[in-house]
Amino acid sequence: MTGESRQDTRAESARDAVPAGGSPLRVAVLGAAGRMGSTVCEAVESAPDMSVIARLDVGDDIAALAGVADVAVDFTVPSATEANVHALIDAGVHPVVGTTGWDEPALDRVREHLERDGRGLGALIAPNFALSAVLAMQFAAQAARYFESVEIIELHHPNKVDAPSGTAVHTAQAVARAREGMPVAPDATQTCLDGARGARVQGIPVHAVRLQGLVAHEEILFGNPGEQLTIRTDSFERSSFMPGVLLAARTVGSRPGLAVGLDAYLELGR
Amino acid sequence: MTGESRQDTRAESARDAVPAGGSPLRVAVLGAAGRMGSTVCEAVESAPDMSVIARLDVGDDIAALAGVADVAVDFTVPSATEANVHALIDAGVHPVVGTTGWDEPALDRVREHLERDGRGLGALIAPNFALSAVLAMQFAAQAARYFESVEIIELHHPNKVDAPSGTAVHTAQAVARAREGMPVAPDATQTCLDGARGARVQGIPVHAVRLQGLVAHEEILFGNPGEQLTIRTDSFERSSFMPGVLLAARTVGSRPGLAVGLDAYLELGR
Amino acid sequence: MTGESRQDTRAESARDAVPAGGSPLRVAVLGAAGRMGSTVCEAVESAPDMSVIARLDVGDDIAALAGVADVAVDFTVPSATEANVHALIDAGVHPVVGTTGWDEPALDRVREHLERDGRGLGALIAPNFALSAVLAMQFAAQAARYFESVEIIELHHPNKVDAPSGTAVHTAQAVARAREGMPVAPDATQTCLDGARGARVQGIPVHAVRLQGLVAHEEILFGNPGEQLTIRTDSFERSSFMPGVLLAARTVGSRPGLAVGLDAYLELGR
Amino acid sequence: MTGESRQDTRAESARDAVPAGGSPLRVAVLGAAGRMGSTVCEAVESAPDMSVIARLDVGDDIAALAGVADVAVDFTVPSATEANVHALIDAGVHPVVGTTGWDEPALDRVREHLERDGRGLGALIAPNFALSAVLAMQFAAQAARYFESVEIIELHHPNKVDAPSGTAVHTAQAVARAREGMPVAPDATQTCLDGARGARVQGIPVHAVRLQGLVAHEEILFGNPGEQLTIRTDSFERSSFMPGVLLAARTVGSRPGLAVGLDAYLELGR
Repeated sequence: MTGESRQDTRAESARDAVPAGGSPLRVAVLGAAGRMGSTVCEAVESAPDMSVIARLDVGDDIAALAGVADVAVDFTVPSATEANVHALIDAGVHPVVGTTGWDEPALDRVREHLERDGRGLGALIAPNFALSAVLAMQFAAQAARYFESVEIIELHHPNKVDAPSGTAVHTAQAVARAREGMPVAPDATQTCLDGARGARVQGIPVHAVRLQGLVAHEEILFGNPGEQLTIRTDSFERSSFMPGVLLAARTVGSRPGLAVGLDAYLELGR
Repeated sequence: MTGESRQDTRAESARDAVPAGGSPLRVAVLGAAGRMGSTVCEAVESAPDMSVIARLDVGDDIAALAGVADVAVDFTVPSATEANVHALIDAGVHPVVGTTGWDEPALDRVREHLERDGRGLGALIAPNFALSAVLAMQFAAQAARYFESVEIIELHHPNKVDAPSGTAVHTAQAVARAREGMPVAPDATQTCLDGARGARVQGIPVHAVRLQGLVAHEEILFGNPGEQLTIRTDSFERSSFMPGVLLAARTVGSRPGLAVGLDAYLELGR
Repeated sequence: MTGESRQDTRAESARDAVPAGGSPLRVAVLGAAGRMGSTVCEAVESAPDMSVIARLDVGDDIAALAGVADVAVDFTVPSATEANVHALIDAGVHPVVGTTGWDEPALDRVREHLERDGRGLGALIAPNFALSAVLAMQFAAQAARYFESVEIIELHHPNKVDAPSGTAVHTAQAVARAREGMPVAPDATQTCLDGARGARVQGIPVHAVRLQGLVAHEEILFGNPGEQLTIRTDSFERSSFMPGVLLAARTVGSRPGLAVGLDAYLELGR
Repeated sequence: MTGESRQDTRAESARDAVPAGGSPLRVAVLGAAGRMGSTVCEAVESAPDMSVIARLDVGDDIAALAGVADVAVDFTVPSATEANVHALIDAGVHPVVGTTGWDEPALDRVREHLERDGRGLGALIAPNFALSAVLAMQFAAQAARYFESVEIIELHHPNKVDAPSGTAVHTAQAVARAREGMPVAPDATQTCLDGARGARVQGIPVHAVRLQGLVAHEEILFGNPGEQLTIRTDSFERSSFMPGVLLAARTVGSRPGLAVGLDAYLELGR
């Protein structure tokens, strides 16, 4: 475990002008040497109200975080993340998890562990920390029932191996769920070149563009007679995840139980 | 009063395949000969679950709607609309009002009247029935606190006399309200041509484009490090208001009291 | 023939303030009672430098235009347009044709007739008079060789029966022609839902969106490392063809021989 | 001078599969240690048909490039670039210059030197090597005379100190030049918040958006009755200049005399 002394952290927090009265949030980063993990470390260090108390990688001892860290951010690998989360719960540390690979039974095991633990710990497991993407999906689901037509266009760099993107598929599923019982969108197409009308994800047309120079982008288009609503999200680089990670780290301690998806922590609606 | 007999309406509703068991909603249209009013008449007539029971214009007797109409849609003039609404309440008809010119005291008088009346009548007074515009404003307010930067671009036909548009001003105000207490958006501008950075509405930059061929369009842009969220709404023609008017007509009867703004009837958030 | 007297036309032109010294261009409209024809009549009448000298429909005598009309705009039907054009050439009237259905042999017959005629008449046959669409296609062809990636998204109202649109197919063909000999755009897609990557038109991916409320829209997206170029064209209504028709009517008289496509009359490039 | 031996270069070129028969273009980079210069070095090295023959910085001897380099790319500083260019001409090396700070007299001195030299050397001095930005400006100038309305929106990161951007100002100037003699765009605005309608650059409205997360973006909007044309360019990172730099390096040797602006080397128009 590549821990840093409590001393250092306090020095940092003084420098960083923590809000009066508050002590800085002590954050451990799991997978700290990885691409996402190291970006998390930078982001936490540059936030005035928290600091990195420990950087862990394979083989480091999570139990040692007990009483030292408040929150642990896990960007490790699918094969390790579930064990990490259970060890964090045992150590009394709130987990914020961006690692993929979770299925329903695994989520249930975390829910049960949190309940059994009884200390009111919170945990967040989220597939996407980009606020714009999470909000776009929320808004799309909210708007879905108020329009006759809806289609999704996702645009990515040409090195992406799957089409459409996972985010676009999730958006289409959320939109389709919200439209249950509604008539299908009008479409008089009779002659169609193969593929022109996109893929269908639960009935929603999804188009995937691959263009040199792009990163990750999604447009959700809604249409009614005489009007259109477009929601677009652009992720230009990895750092786009960081505001969401920091928001999660600040929030997880006050939300007992397991939350799945960052939108659980956003105050949406009215 | 250019009323139509109850008989006619029933014949129409049979034709229009009203959902099993339901009798069609009986809608009176005030200002039926006007541009908006006549478009409302068409939209109501083409909806399967409602029909126009009466078309009223200046001088027609609103009291005669008692027991005849369920809902009345008012697209008249600012000088007439308040009296119309009070007469509709007396007649036991739910008002849906798109006429402008309401101020807080006038709204209060409607609230008091509805309460005094005691029959649980609903009323909706809304400045904008375009679902895409109403949703865009809602989403903008929800997203506002999660981004460092926000700016608004509205685009209209060149015959518009005011800049920025009322909708853009309302959006900016809603966004500013949601951002209270947040730091101002970063902006290092030192050298600036007059007007380049737009107008400021409660601190939010608003840019107004006037272009031949356009109708009414608005973009709200949010930015964080590495990511952008864009919400865009396009109104191509007057008919864009109709889905919102029909939704209001269907909903007003089940929502006692005064609602201001169509968003009051939209099921947003979670 | 529903001709109007020369007298009337002069009166109109005086009213409309023709540029000093010029007499107004005398325009005949073939198919004047049709949707496009009647819109052409309105557009010509509202232009200060030309007027409608004759409105012709089925059965009217084109020969009578000799010496009366300078230019004739043909928006009739595929079965009539070729005979109309040859009759116009015989009458010494410059044809501007928006009717579809022309193939290469038919175009060759017009070329030969114009040459045989020997009076230096001009003729324009164009599939599309929307300036924005014509320019977009030109620019796309010009840009095509300078980018690694290119894809096309066309968006239309849901009553359209074919996908992708003819305009998008033409654009893709023009882009493909300009890219001959270039490497194909990078695309690492391995897993793909059917249709997600669009249709292929000569190797160019083309995506077709069908959305209630839209009219006719096209986006051409180009990508290089670190940069993107987007060309978008929106046609909101039939009147979008009129600036192109007027430009053609003004130009055809000074361009001997047959021109195919409005871009032949645009001064592009440097 | 940090030259590399001819030997090495040949070895590289063999690896890189130079087109049959061609020897690789020998490129010297001036300002090679700078941000742009080092990116140029990478780009040249990864191109199959050219290689970096020398990396020069302050104090290195340009005369030594004679007979060694074919082309020199200068991304240095305004105070050095003019002397560099004259030294390159004396050395018989074609200069490609991205450094800013050139005025008309300085350009004239280069023109005279090239003519006096008499060896048919080419030189390119360009303020912008981003192909998408250069093409967007060209297309905007071409389209400008065919539309009633035109406005420009530029969007940049919030650290930019000037508004509007130099690129937007140049675009507006080019558009204004092309519209000389045309009526001004229609605009009925009577009531206007200060700044809402943007800045005016030679009569063209220009709006500047500053948004966290953005890099450098520009939209040029054209409008006619019923139609809109939009040209948008996005520069996401410094590498966006490289395709333009490589194109210039490949072309400069076959274009005697001074060219100003990358568009001089693009084959546009028909």
